[in-house]
Amino acid sequence: MPKITIIGLGLIGSSLGLALKQSQLLDVQLVGNELDREAAIRSSRKGAVDKVEPYLPAAVEGAHMVIIATPVLAIQEVLRDIAPHVAEGAVVTDTGSTKSMVLQWAAELLPPTVSFVGGHPMAGKTESGPDEAEADLFKGAPYCIVAGPSARPEALDAVVEMVRAIGAVPYFVGAAEHDSYVAAASHLPIAMSAALVAITARSPSWREIARLAAGGYRDTTRLAQGDPIMNRDILLTNREPVTYWIDEMIKELYQLRASLQENPPDLQQRLQDLFYHAFQSRTDWVTGEAYKEPSTSGELPKIGETMSRFLVGDWAMRKFEDGKGGDPKHQAQQPSKLKEQKRKGWFKK
Amino acid sequence: MPKITIIGLGLIGSSLGLALKQSQLLDVQLVGNELDREAAIRSSRKGAVDKVEPYLPAAVEGAHMVIIATPVLAIQEVLRDIAPHVAEGAVVTDTGSTKSMVLQWAAELLPPTVSFVGGHPMAGKTESGPDEAEADLFKGAPYCIVAGPSARPEALDAVVEMVRAIGAVPYFVGAAEHDSYVAAASHLPIAMSAALVAITARSPSWREIARLAAGGYRDTTRLAQGDPIMNRDILLTNREPVTYWIDEMIKELYQLRASLQENPPDLQQRLQDLFYHAFQSRTDWVTGEAYKEPSTSGELPKIGETMSRFLVGDWAMRKFEDGKGGDPKHQAQQPSKLKEQKRKGWFKK
Repeated sequence: MPKITIIGLGLIGSSLGLALKQSQLLDVQLVGNELDREAAIRSSRKGAVDKVEPYLPAAVEGAHMVIIATPVLAIQEVLRDIAPHVAEGAVVTDTGSTKSMVLQWAAELLPPTVSFVGGHPMAGKTESGPDEAEADLFKGAPYCIVAGPSARPEALDAVVEMVRAIGAVPYFVGAAEHDSYVAAASHLPIAMSAALVAITARSPSWREIARLAAGGYRDTTRLAQGDPIMNRDILLTNREPVTYWIDEMIKELYQLRASLQENPPDLQQRLQDLFYHAFQSRTDWVTGEAYKEPSTSGELPKIGETMSRFLVGDWAMRKFEDGKGGDPKHQAQQPSKLKEQKRKGWFKK
Repeated sequence: MPKITIIGLGLIGSSLGLALKQSQLLDVQLVGNELDREAAIRSSRKGAVDKVEPYLPAAVEGAHMVIIATPVLAIQEVLRDIAPHVAEGAVVTDTGSTKSMVLQWAAELLPPTVSFVGGHPMAGKTESGPDEAEADLFKGAPYCIVAGPSARPEALDAVVEMVRAIGAVPYFVGAAEHDSYVAAASHLPIAMSAALVAITARSPSWREIARLAAGGYRDTTRLAQGDPIMNRDILLTNREPVTYWIDEMIKELYQLRASLQENPPDLQQRLQDLFYHAFQSRTDWVTGEAYKEPSTSGELPKIGETMSRFLVGDWAMRKFEDGKGGDPKHQAQQPSKLKEQKRKGWFKK
């Protein structure tokens, strides 16, 4: 019976376990490993895994797939610890919020006989821990897949199959692109939320501000109440892209404060433009208009092409793009032929 | 029968109407006025007002209370237009998001026989318009009350009674303090949300960012999808306090980006501190710990004192506070004796 080991039974690890159990994957043994004994018990009672194995080498021994669902910094330690014990031909994947450093660690630490495929489900909650886990957490959410340079095709297929099994939508992307996109979509919002709480909470008027703060403050600061270790690791392992996006935010805010101070004759129009554009852009995002597929009638890439894109890593991928032009990342969204090819799948053999 | 006129039948005006109808106020005629004929019809069909009167002078004629529930800039026009028609002894109030300029306009435009009492319910929604109106919108929410210098005590009592009738909690505050607190709690978050949408939506990678953006982006940008005119007017009429808070945000973000760039040996600890503090402060806010009453056993202010505080306006209030020290604003939160005194109320006579 294929064995899947989940390392880290927090919100994401436990939700993965629940989702896999609810899925069509037959005859898989789910083993969990978690440093926090209490969390391990709660996750196991919830039915997220078939068995908890507190000894890490035993947990990964003979596993066909190892899913590391810890905060990002801990992934490095886990990779080091499991490296001597992972079975030859196994696939190791993770759910970390940043990918460049994780792929680098995997390349350094894992033996070449093991395939590493980075993963990042774009789903979460403010609350952390196994008690908050849900089988449906990943339903319909994009799940970033970043293949390591040494990942074998069947390892990649296995991760894609796992992602589909939990109801998520595979999104193939390079590590650098991933880290840049999520810096904008997720990490900058985390930094802004924490900064907003920091500056208001240290104000001498905090008591009054807090009393009057309502739904707007609640939503804007929700991310500040996420797991502090997870947030710390995100910024720590994605310093360059986050810095870029913080700078964009500072420039934008500076321009706004300059307008408010200078009070030019067209201030009313400028503010109106800002808010109308923001309203429109966010509406397009909510409706999906902002990222609907381009209406090209071009051919999808052939399976061989798609596969090679999965496997070449960032550097070669960019060269490929530069050479061919266009926006092949979007084509990579639709590996429908691949999907059919692999329908019978890795786990069901 | 006392007549209340609501000018502006959007989300707030229509919700006010519905809440007043559901309340204990007996025998009140609710008249609505709204520029947008379609919105007026929808509001009226929903039962927010007894009658729509499209001609503004007729709408306010003979009204005991006029509630202006338009975006802030429009309040100035409305005050100018209604000034010749408001009955002597009537009370005019508003629901605008900023108070200093509104109080200034009221002092300039309304005749001295009319009492102006500024108001600001700390409740709202992303969506605007009468279709979104709810009778329960204000339940339990703080409702800022800022008495104009010429407001008579019974006018203030009438507004307090109206606020309690819709289920909100009166919060007495000076105009400058109000504008400073809500700049932090509400207006800075609005500016940040719009700025976040602006910088991400204009990025060449917007399509990919948008596809990967999930719950964090959704919550952080919710305010950017609020009514653009309302948001424009807020920043336009609260320039100084908003600038102050944008500067605080820029400083905080700059410090963070400097740390990420310099990568000092204690970066991990610094980020951990930032996120732990933010987590703790936001938890204290959610639980109400951040603004619970100080546990003094001191006397509540006598009725005369409390009343004078309501009526003296900002300048004298600050002088009062400077002279006495302490934190009389918090005492003003608890006008329970006043409440008992006035229980029989203005509308029920």
